[in-house]
Amino acid sequence: MNIYDVSQKANVSIATISRVLNGNPNVSEKTRTRVLAVMDELGYTPNVFARGLGLNTMQSVGIMCSDSSDPYLAHAIYYLERELRNNHYDSILCCTGYNLDTKKKYLQLLRSKRVDAIILTGSKFIELRQKDNTYILDAAREIPIMLINGFLDGPNIYSTLCDDYSAVYDATSNLIKSGCRNILYLYTSQSYSGHNKRTGYVNACQDAGLFIDKTWIHQCPKDVLEAKNLLTSLHEQGVVFDAVVTSDDSLAVGAVKYANTQHIRIPDELSIVGYNNSMYSLCTEPEISSVDTKIEALCTSTVNTLMGVFGGGNVPSKTTIAADFISRDTTKF
Amino acid sequence: MNIYDVSQKANVSIATISRVLNGNPNVSEKTRTRVLAVMDELGYTPNVFARGLGLNTMQSVGIMCSDSSDPYLAHAIYYLERELRNNHYDSILCCTGYNLDTKKKYLQLLRSKRVDAIILTGSKFIELRQKDNTYILDAAREIPIMLINGFLDGPNIYSTLCDDYSAVYDATSNLIKSGCRNILYLYTSQSYSGHNKRTGYVNACQDAGLFIDKTWIHQCPKDVLEAKNLLTSLHEQGVVFDAVVTSDDSLAVGAVKYANTQHIRIPDELSIVGYNNSMYSLCTEPEISSVDTKIEALCTSTVNTLMGVFGGGNVPSKTTIAADFISRDTTKF
Repeated sequence: MNIYDVSQKANVSIATISRVLNGNPNVSEKTRTRVLAVMDELGYTPNVFARGLGLNTMQSVGIMCSDSSDPYLAHAIYYLERELRNNHYDSILCCTGYNLDTKKKYLQLLRSKRVDAIILTGSKFIELRQKDNTYILDAAREIPIMLINGFLDGPNIYSTLCDDYSAVYDATSNLIKSGCRNILYLYTSQSYSGHNKRTGYVNACQDAGLFIDKTWIHQCPKDVLEAKNLLTSLHEQGVVFDAVVTSDDSLAVGAVKYANTQHIRIPDELSIVGYNNSMYSLCTEPEISSVDTKIEALCTSTVNTLMGVFGGGNVPSKTTIAADFISRDTTKF
Repeated sequence: MNIYDVSQKANVSIATISRVLNGNPNVSEKTRTRVLAVMDELGYTPNVFARGLGLNTMQSVGIMCSDSSDPYLAHAIYYLERELRNNHYDSILCCTGYNLDTKKKYLQLLRSKRVDAIILTGSKFIELRQKDNTYILDAAREIPIMLINGFLDGPNIYSTLCDDYSAVYDATSNLIKSGCRNILYLYTSQSYSGHNKRTGYVNACQDAGLFIDKTWIHQCPKDVLEAKNLLTSLHEQGVVFDAVVTSDDSLAVGAVKYANTQHIRIPDELSIVGYNNSMYSLCTEPEISSVDTKIEALCTSTVNTLMGVFGGGNVPSKTTIAADFISRDTTKF
């Protein structure tokens, strides 16, 4: 639904619609009434409406995130809002939760608000089944869709990604080089980003000739105590491990608590790798070696790309940013 | 600036303006042009404009917070957005930082966006000098201003507060009852809420006949390592203390790290009280006793009050919610 649909249906030119919207008296009453009726019927809210009144009040970008109380996403919202504001765009924030139908509903809601673009923040928005992503491809026919740490191939969709695969591959390879042979992998979700992290872990083990035991890979809620309890339980079941790679710092905190409670020495007997380099990685004793996923750079890059799209420039549909490994006291490297 | 100003300046009735906005043909071309010109001149964007087109797209509430990446504020934004959405309002989020001039600029920006109300989230918005709050009183002349964990007396200003004073008073009193005699107080800011917490601490000590030494009260950035370093430094200077009350969990984490590093037994030799009952309170060993400040209830109550204001109901200008003490392993109670 756009100004061209209104033009076609009302059988008037774009210029006439613009005159109606701007209150220009050089439009017949009959035409004016017909244009307004068609806009009403089609449910079209013109951004130029407010601009025509000299107010320029309706430049806005929708930000969808699954949960603003997640520290990683909370930082993303902070940086996105700041960068958009610097470019004179408002942010309309929707916290969608994790249910697919709810996400679809919120995206539809933002579209009905006539935002100029939508940013999907975090990899929870791209589903493994391609048909579950159709609603995103549909939306991209009308407005740019920006993905942060997610990837979907399609016109008018732009991804900015952290290279999670390499980050976990390198961390796991370094654990192996430092002598670890039984490396657990704890992850929180099966998202696009989650898939890449896990593949990094699997490939690093395989490239080093390590056979990955079926007891090594576990999903765990993003919760310190759940992670601690999971490792305690594995320990009690006799699973032997000398390293834990995690997809989130909260799980790494749980691993440190497990080791401290069991009097297991870190990193001599157990190495631990966190992810996201959040304040959590500093809460424990010893402090946690973690992957800095460059969330600020991801957000800045996303907004820069979006401004390029608005400006009609030739912008890349996929931008990848390298992560940094922040060495602290839970690894030997 | 509202529809009445337009009515007065254009010398037409509200009903006529409504007809213009709704594209009703029963308005003379001359009147229509005059109304649009006055709206333009006054910078007035009518919400009924979009509603008149049957779209109802412009119901929105501005949320200002100093920093969405702060865990407490991130949760507040999450709950506010959800409650507003449930009531069919969009949220426009502004992260203002802590500078007064920047806050004023953002509030002005939200007013220019014609939001239906503004929620100031967190106690950082109310300044100690009354004249620094004048811009908030000015804004409240036109739209409701909602304060979460801040208080300012004035028409059309509504506060929802956690009873921080009683929470800290009770925690400190219980420390004294459990045998503590040298109780440090670490705080992050001098906000309204910060002032109440500190007064709770001071009064509890005084009511128990404890003399507060000048080395007991310290400001500290909201940072785990800064808090740890501060306590280590006090310890090295010979300051004796058997309890630490904090205004934020991150400082309490720093206190636990300090004690663990110095081999000081918790809670036998040192009791520690956190604040906000965040995930941080679970990251350490032992886990931290903390004050649950009921952020979800504060946000729900704020939005309920706002809907009451919109509905023209008789709503309280100040609502206070009691905190809960969550007992864990850093206190004897």
